[in-house]
Amino acid sequence: MQRKLRLASFMFAPSSHLGGWRLPEAIPEIDMGLDHYVHLAQVSEAAKMDLLFFQDTMTVPRSNDLLKGDIYGGISPRATSLEPMTLMPALAMATKHIGLVSTASTTFNDPYSLARKFATLDHISKGRAGWNLVTSQNENEAQNFGLTKHVDHALRYERALEFFDVVAGLWDSWDDGAIIRDKETGTYFDITKLHFLNHEGPHFRVRGPLNVDRPPQGYPVIFQAGSSGPGRDLAAKTADAVFTAQRNVTDAQAFYEDVKSRAQAHGRRRDDIKILPGLTPIIGRTEGEAQELNECMRDLIPEDQAIAALMQISGGLDLRDFPADGPLPDLPPTNSAKGRQDMISELARRENLTLAQVARRWAESSGHLTLVGTPVSIAEEMQAWLEAEACDGFAIIHAYYPGGGENFCRLVVPELQKRGIFRTEYEGDTLRENLGLRKRGRGQ
Amino acid sequence: MQRKLRLASFMFAPSSHLGGWRLPEAIPEIDMGLDHYVHLAQVSEAAKMDLLFFQDTMTVPRSNDLLKGDIYGGISPRATSLEPMTLMPALAMATKHIGLVSTASTTFNDPYSLARKFATLDHISKGRAGWNLVTSQNENEAQNFGLTKHVDHALRYERALEFFDVVAGLWDSWDDGAIIRDKETGTYFDITKLHFLNHEGPHFRVRGPLNVDRPPQGYPVIFQAGSSGPGRDLAAKTADAVFTAQRNVTDAQAFYEDVKSRAQAHGRRRDDIKILPGLTPIIGRTEGEAQELNECMRDLIPEDQAIAALMQISGGLDLRDFPADGPLPDLPPTNSAKGRQDMISELARRENLTLAQVARRWAESSGHLTLVGTPVSIAEEMQAWLEAEACDGFAIIHAYYPGGGENFCRLVVPELQKRGIFRTEYEGDTLRENLGLRKRGRGQ
Repeated sequence: MQRKLRLASFMFAPSSHLGGWRLPEAIPEIDMGLDHYVHLAQVSEAAKMDLLFFQDTMTVPRSNDLLKGDIYGGISPRATSLEPMTLMPALAMATKHIGLVSTASTTFNDPYSLARKFATLDHISKGRAGWNLVTSQNENEAQNFGLTKHVDHALRYERALEFFDVVAGLWDSWDDGAIIRDKETGTYFDITKLHFLNHEGPHFRVRGPLNVDRPPQGYPVIFQAGSSGPGRDLAAKTADAVFTAQRNVTDAQAFYEDVKSRAQAHGRRRDDIKILPGLTPIIGRTEGEAQELNECMRDLIPEDQAIAALMQISGGLDLRDFPADGPLPDLPPTNSAKGRQDMISELARRENLTLAQVARRWAESSGHLTLVGTPVSIAEEMQAWLEAEACDGFAIIHAYYPGGGENFCRLVVPELQKRGIFRTEYEGDTLRENLGLRKRGRGQ
Repeated sequence: MQRKLRLASFMFAPSSHLGGWRLPEAIPEIDMGLDHYVHLAQVSEAAKMDLLFFQDTMTVPRSNDLLKGDIYGGISPRATSLEPMTLMPALAMATKHIGLVSTASTTFNDPYSLARKFATLDHISKGRAGWNLVTSQNENEAQNFGLTKHVDHALRYERALEFFDVVAGLWDSWDDGAIIRDKETGTYFDITKLHFLNHEGPHFRVRGPLNVDRPPQGYPVIFQAGSSGPGRDLAAKTADAVFTAQRNVTDAQAFYEDVKSRAQAHGRRRDDIKILPGLTPIIGRTEGEAQELNECMRDLIPEDQAIAALMQISGGLDLRDFPADGPLPDLPPTNSAKGRQDMISELARRENLTLAQVARRWAESSGHLTLVGTPVSIAEEMQAWLEAEACDGFAIIHAYYPGGGENFCRLVVPELQKRGIFRTEYEGDTLRENLGLRKRGRGQ
């Protein structure tokens, strides 16, 4: 049977591309604008995309390790945005089928509260919730939570695994049918179907039970985005899907094989975990038009802002001290995004890019794949990745709003459908069913 | 000018009354049922009520200090329910005017995350958000958050005040108009309108700024529910409104005067803080019909469940060890709900009630005022409280769903409107405006 793509619509307002929001037709006001989010959600659902995927950080984006002057003004197009856990229930009311997946940190949350919120979202959306479990790679977030320095990488992953176990255990608090509300006897629930967690571990002590019924999906769909060794291992153990940055088929195939093998080593099936690289499509009616749009947006990225943006993964090195037309300097080890740093250093070496060039590449896509072309050429390349087992689908990163998302949905999706590699109707009722994933949790 | 009542619709599913959910027409399935919440929200809005008020605890309700046997089966009609911070954005999409106020604990939350969520809700709802700031009185919650014993009463209030200061400071991160999104120059925001918090206190270190725009209301409306000395003082300093349990006009007048005086002592106006006692109306077309409904619901409360429920405020004393037809024993001091315990002991003495009788009173209304009568007699009593300056309005606690809320909205509200003490149309665009409160925050 023809494998089909799984497609996520990546929600990062106003755009991941540092120049995209400056296009004349772009509406950067989506960052604080509910109605714009509703529009993008509905456009994505009309195209039968699997899910909306919310990136999230708990800080105004900035590179502060070596803060000098007004770097704040330029580090990212984004300053403020709607908080996704509060936004998603509103979008659940404006949609019927599309999944609602948000990033939430295991470093800056409590498992009981987080388990409640995702369970509630799963009920409200009738089985469409998902959690992108991250350990938080942004050192600036730590300063908003009482810490002066970020928690060590290894310790963060140890805490993350225990956090997941607690949350999963809480979701298993009640068997299906435990709440009987028997008016005759005055018995509200069947105590034999209630399970206490009584978790006591190095990071958490949580008694339970959760005060929300078992989620319709058993567990909401678990995403992971770590690409370092500990990140891949956490994903292999816990995740239903992995969001990753991959720039070419060969590397992507290696990543795909590695994560699926690790999952098998943990007793899971290869199909139990889906791999979705990020992809920014830059779409034109002709190749020339697409190239023109790409260059236009690239020209809209100020060089100094691109270099400042790259400092997100520079390991504390102030890249503004180096000549923009010289090579990318060797980067010191980072406690945050190890995987991304390795990839960008490798890219600079392989293509012999200057600091300014590699910075602009980063600022275009934060290290993700960009495909510039016609709907046909983009669909063709997506199909090639799918057939080469380089991915199970993609997270579509919109270069600007609304045109980026609209053009993908209206032009590329029909081309994918024509090739038989994307659905024309939703198959299931829940996000799990649409993604071809089994229900998880006690008794499954 | 005629003072007008402020009315909250109290959202506690399936009912606060321990017998109400067993009525034949009751639908206890509201506890996990979004559509039922939507219905109650829309009925409340059609009646022009000011706001929906969500109670919340982060535990399955129980009295576990002296846990024996299957007390879980009986302690409360409620076992599980939808988490209010996730439910409110969904209700914001199903309503246009009514305020959305939820309880959230300063003991088990982080100020940065909480500030983000309420600011986002305020944007999504276009200025209808409110936060009922509680320090958490339930010792069982602590066990879901890594603590074996609850945090001491005084320390909780000290933390609460600092928590509020941090949250308010974060809401003031951005001046109005700070986000300029200037495509021409590539400048996303005006850095001179950005304020860092740089808070360093005994409980919190938070750098800021918040990554959400200034809330439309400046600050969402702040509720408080503490009735102890430290509770009243926190309210007098920080709150726009106080939710309280008062059973008679005299006590309510004293409470009203005390809180308003404390607010004045902190340099605020008496009108800056609204006092809303809880009120359960038991409504009949005749007095006889109302009495009959009241007795019917009382009979539906199992005696052992009532006594177990009263243990919520028994200070650790196992009331099941005492004869049900004997007097209420002296209660040892409690670290949790001091105010409620004093009130219930006083009630038992004054009316010379047996343990079983006082337990049923508690299980009917958790210590709140109950008015049994016709729409006219209930409206009359509400008017008397308003005119005696015993309150600025009420939080209407529904004895069962849907009839309790529906009958109040359809029968009592028109009677209040006829008397000119309740609005017939919403006056303002935001919850603050409807409550007659000024915008708060930097520059106000």
